[in-house]
Amino acid sequence: MGKTDWKAEAKALKKKVAKLKAQAKAAPEAAVTPAKMVSPLAPEAFPALPVIGGVEFAAAEAGVRYRNRKDVMLIRLAPGTTMAGVFTRSSTRAACVLDCQAKIGKPSEAGAAIIVNSGNSNAFTGAVGVEAVTAVTGGVAEALGLPSDRVFSSSTGVIGEPLPHDRITAKIPDLVAGLAEDAIEMAARAMMTTDTFPKGASAVVQGDGGEIRIAGIAKGSGMIAPDMATMLVYIFTDAKIAQPLLQKMLSRQVEATFNAITVDSDTSTSDALLLAATGTSPAAELNGRTKPGREFEAALARVMLDLAQQVVRDGEGATKFVEVRVTGAATVEDAHKVAMAIANSPLVKTAIAGEDPNWGRIVMAVGKSGAAADRDRLSIRFGDILVAANGWRSPDYREEDGAAYMKRSELVIAVDLGLGAGTRTVWTCDLTHRYIDINADYRS
Amino acid sequence: MGKTDWKAEAKALKKKVAKLKAQAKAAPEAAVTPAKMVSPLAPEAFPALPVIGGVEFAAAEAGVRYRNRKDVMLIRLAPGTTMAGVFTRSSTRAACVLDCQAKIGKPSEAGAAIIVNSGNSNAFTGAVGVEAVTAVTGGVAEALGLPSDRVFSSSTGVIGEPLPHDRITAKIPDLVAGLAEDAIEMAARAMMTTDTFPKGASAVVQGDGGEIRIAGIAKGSGMIAPDMATMLVYIFTDAKIAQPLLQKMLSRQVEATFNAITVDSDTSTSDALLLAATGTSPAAELNGRTKPGREFEAALARVMLDLAQQVVRDGEGATKFVEVRVTGAATVEDAHKVAMAIANSPLVKTAIAGEDPNWGRIVMAVGKSGAAADRDRLSIRFGDILVAANGWRSPDYREEDGAAYMKRSELVIAVDLGLGAGTRTVWTCDLTHRYIDINADYRS
Repeated sequence: MGKTDWKAEAKALKKKVAKLKAQAKAAPEAAVTPAKMVSPLAPEAFPALPVIGGVEFAAAEAGVRYRNRKDVMLIRLAPGTTMAGVFTRSSTRAACVLDCQAKIGKPSEAGAAIIVNSGNSNAFTGAVGVEAVTAVTGGVAEALGLPSDRVFSSSTGVIGEPLPHDRITAKIPDLVAGLAEDAIEMAARAMMTTDTFPKGASAVVQGDGGEIRIAGIAKGSGMIAPDMATMLVYIFTDAKIAQPLLQKMLSRQVEATFNAITVDSDTSTSDALLLAATGTSPAAELNGRTKPGREFEAALARVMLDLAQQVVRDGEGATKFVEVRVTGAATVEDAHKVAMAIANSPLVKTAIAGEDPNWGRIVMAVGKSGAAADRDRLSIRFGDILVAANGWRSPDYREEDGAAYMKRSELVIAVDLGLGAGTRTVWTCDLTHRYIDINADYRS
Repeated sequence: MGKTDWKAEAKALKKKVAKLKAQAKAAPEAAVTPAKMVSPLAPEAFPALPVIGGVEFAAAEAGVRYRNRKDVMLIRLAPGTTMAGVFTRSSTRAACVLDCQAKIGKPSEAGAAIIVNSGNSNAFTGAVGVEAVTAVTGGVAEALGLPSDRVFSSSTGVIGEPLPHDRITAKIPDLVAGLAEDAIEMAARAMMTTDTFPKGASAVVQGDGGEIRIAGIAKGSGMIAPDMATMLVYIFTDAKIAQPLLQKMLSRQVEATFNAITVDSDTSTSDALLLAATGTSPAAELNGRTKPGREFEAALARVMLDLAQQVVRDGEGATKFVEVRVTGAATVEDAHKVAMAIANSPLVKTAIAGEDPNWGRIVMAVGKSGAAADRDRLSIRFGDILVAANGWRSPDYREEDGAAYMKRSELVIAVDLGLGAGTRTVWTCDLTHRYIDINADYRS
């Protein structure tokens, strides 16, 4: 036997190294860092939002938890603004949510303000949590010359840690000095936590005597994840509209928008949506029974749905955006139950992540939903592809068609129950390894 | 410069290869194959189960879907056997479940049989599904000389594919010829799908005039996963007991045992539990009001709980066995809601997988459960460690104690709501990368 050919061995080993490196790169986990990789479902850029007369924004670095980024934002609303809101129904909701709920319905001509911090949710913090809310809202009220019951606050971040409210109140003078009408994107960024992109949407409708503008921002990586991904939404309009009508429109539209999205079925302690109408539009006051009123409500619903869908597109670890359309249910409530059973099923969501057209799991989810269903009247479609009907797989369905469809990044799963007129559409995302990475390791 | 030292370079490259291989091994995904790695929570071995007089088992390779393993099993029960059962409440349940439900309550002295296949669940298969059940149960009835309404069947595996029932009926002669009293473990293995170990449990109680034996087997990798992990349970006893009393005891004990476990909140289309009492024990007939009757029911409950907990220990991807104890709820129903909200929360389950003592997520789960709860009366313990009380983190709680506790493979999360006397304990496992591997790729 001759001597070892070290040159040949080195070359072979070099190839091996290259191959192993390529494998490591191809492995889904190795390539992913839980940090700020922008969601593959994100819009191309933050949209251009119209300025809403009477609304100003500012943001600052208070160092509540994060370093080297803005983590507190202030919004000033002109005198005459009416406020409406909807909030989490959690029985363990945070002090700032309880405070907002107590203040929201009160009539006032004084104007208003909203102050929001990220990094700490001030939830489950007992009496010191209430003190923190009083300190922050009181500080803003004093600086802006507002009654304190016109200052609304939100906090998003870790649960159960005392909120270092001094760091926030110390920044109030800077925030007040920085207020500007065109700083809405900066405000959207300051409230991000695990979000990978800031979320904004707008609409313009024709009122009597002038146009009415709507602009909104949201944060959230799901409706979910109390110590990191609370959903916060702020929508502004220059419409002239009475508070009861504004609240009625908001409450009516929330079911088919923000209550129709889910990332992982976990409901935050701190979800809040505030809607402010400044009345600075030249258009006449809105009325629920006239065309401008109806068009305003429809435009508001579109802005709400757009923001809600952006939250799903930023769902933790999401790679697929999924619309679940349920029709033919006995009631709307049943349609909602079935749609949410599908959208929240870990087995449906992992199948979608694996691009497996596993329609049997949709049958399962319908079955467990608790809604009235008849196996033999059920039909299931992936997009336009009829997968199952009359209690069995469709004779024309070919597995390869389903498999090809599942490779898309935007999917529609349509289920018809064949029983009645109840319908509901909800939006969700898939369940991937990254969801586990993000949530197993968040606090460490 | 000298020539390249190929020997040194080869040695360096060898080190690099070794390092890259070690990295690949350390990466959680690279090291895991979705195949039959036995759960780290599995018991050491299948337990020694007592022979139950009047019960015989056989198994065979029918090739329904799997190759080179037994996938069909037959159980013969002696004349005089009484049968009780509980089944999935899914509205899309499989043909064999509907068939069992129609047969279970009928009195008969003729004996009975149970035939079970793995690999295909015969669910959502329309009229041909019903034909398959008729063919299989009819074939067994004819071979064993039983009325066909005394033959019960279960199928577990993929949904929506026609069951190749000829492959099963072709094996009936072999199965009948192979029936033996001591083959219970073989039967337990034949019905496994994604299970990583066969599950068995037993108890012996003293009756009037002799001992009464109970032995049971189960399959399931959760209550979950309709196309792969249906839960099937068969329990046998030689007790003399009337059918109505047997059914009453079974129904009473199912809430705190099989209805108190969850792997991922997805309910199967095919879950079935059959309990057969052959009456071959020398002990006198049981009565619900006497000591032997009460002791029998307690022993039955222990066997049911043992099997239920083994299903959780084999939960897909499980690395932690978690007991969630809820006390102080306004009602038992509320205690169940809170316990299940915690046990099913993806955020709680991923935190446990990451060994993060993230008690804020438990507060969130209590809040979203829909049960009556008062934030300021809530207390949370990890094992004996008081984590939170009176609406805030306990002043004595140290994060490092919680972190050390979470490293255990068996965890107790105790929540007291401080409102009433309602209690419920449920069992679950963590949510890991392997769950996604198993369920994203199952059918491919």
